[in-house]
Amino acid sequence: MKKILGMLGGMGPGATADAFYKLINNTKASKDQEHIPVIIVSIPDIPDRTENIIYDGPSPLPAMINSLKLLENAGVSCIVMPCNTAHYWYEDLMKEVKIPFISIIDAACKNIISNKIRKVALLATTATIRTKLYQEKLSLNNVECIVPDEINQYKIMQSIIAYKAGDIDKAKELIYPYINMLKSDGVNKFVMGCTEIPLILDEVVNCSPDEFIDATEALIKEAIDWYNFGDERFEKEMINENYQ
Amino acid sequence: MKKILGMLGGMGPGATADAFYKLINNTKASKDQEHIPVIIVSIPDIPDRTENIIYDGPSPLPAMINSLKLLENAGVSCIVMPCNTAHYWYEDLMKEVKIPFISIIDAACKNIISNKIRKVALLATTATIRTKLYQEKLSLNNVECIVPDEINQYKIMQSIIAYKAGDIDKAKELIYPYINMLKSDGVNKFVMGCTEIPLILDEVVNCSPDEFIDATEALIKEAIDWYNFGDERFEKEMINENYQ
Repeated sequence: MKKILGMLGGMGPGATADAFYKLINNTKASKDQEHIPVIIVSIPDIPDRTENIIYDGPSPLPAMINSLKLLENAGVSCIVMPCNTAHYWYEDLMKEVKIPFISIIDAACKNIISNKIRKVALLATTATIRTKLYQEKLSLNNVECIVPDEINQYKIMQSIIAYKAGDIDKAKELIYPYINMLKSDGVNKFVMGCTEIPLILDEVVNCSPDEFIDATEALIKEAIDWYNFGDERFEKEMINENYQ
Repeated sequence: MKKILGMLGGMGPGATADAFYKLINNTKASKDQEHIPVIIVSIPDIPDRTENIIYDGPSPLPAMINSLKLLENAGVSCIVMPCNTAHYWYEDLMKEVKIPFISIIDAACKNIISNKIRKVALLATTATIRTKLYQEKLSLNNVECIVPDEINQYKIMQSIIAYKAGDIDKAKELIYPYINMLKSDGVNKFVMGCTEIPLILDEVVNCSPDEFIDATEALIKEAIDWYNFGDERFEKEMINENYQ
């Protein structure tokens, strides 16, 4: 059986397309046939993750399980889900399938820790911040994690919402002042811990990729490692050790 | 049952990602949940289409049918296949499924004809040119179709191969002289009849989108029409009338 990567997408669709591009661009291939097989389910009518966590809106879990089952039934051998906030339900989703499921949070944290970075500023949805998806894992590994105050976090969330609504200019305007403020305070490592953020910050990220840790790219690189080196190494590194 | 678009991709993966981006960018949506549901199968280990048609290489049809069946079994309600050359097998693939299958060739020709364009230069793989996928349909509608001589067609094919191998600079170098030559001869409409070509020509296409008819974008706009207006209109326009 050939390995097929499964991408549980739609959260949002633009971030899913970005993850697909990053899969292609990070694969060494000299022709079509050498690229990694992937099935992408982008059924975006999934209740909003932040709305559920912060405002007690409807749960996205049943819709996410539906997409996951579609992927498993189609025969994929490993799952990635290019949405950080959705990883609040990572354990619930893992229980539903018998195949590996690479965590975007683990992948980004592995990148930070293995590069011996000691201090990062986290750019993420309000739900990702509140549920401490990154902070707890980073803290266990002695990485200081700066999170925005309430006003700046509100602006970052509005930036993500503006991007999802197609207003890229507004998205940029809302997020840049906070980044510039931190930079003037000497912060030089930012975790793009929401899959829309690399799309909002595309120009600045291309100019200084070392400053911006892209969770989507970290996830995709783990997926490529899984494809090239097999489940065994992946399971040992990603699940058992859990980067602690 | 909700409608889900199915994308038979992988030919090549970059072109599939481009079609996915065009689906997102052409959809009016103010939040994730308003985007069009899509399942994308990009299993690129499909024998090369041009190799089969021109040099009698192995047939890609069984692998294409495999991807098509994966999509149908996953519950998609309509198929698009962002690869022009692969439409040589369009009738064979249509027979395999009971759902609509929008032809990229029909979509691009519809765009040309409805815009009352009388003369176009076709940029495509050698196989698409030789099998006259565009020329016959355009000729029936009194559209003159300029195709490259053998030397220029060789360069265009090498350009497409270079893009697939990740060498974008070489791809551009190989295709621009021919386009510039035609432009100096007064040609002002080009059909990008290979889904890699809008990726090779991205800068020039963005500068003058009216000059370049993008088959991928035409296909995606038909798919969005199918999603918004239903099978009935689609079937009447696309299948019965066949733009003649």
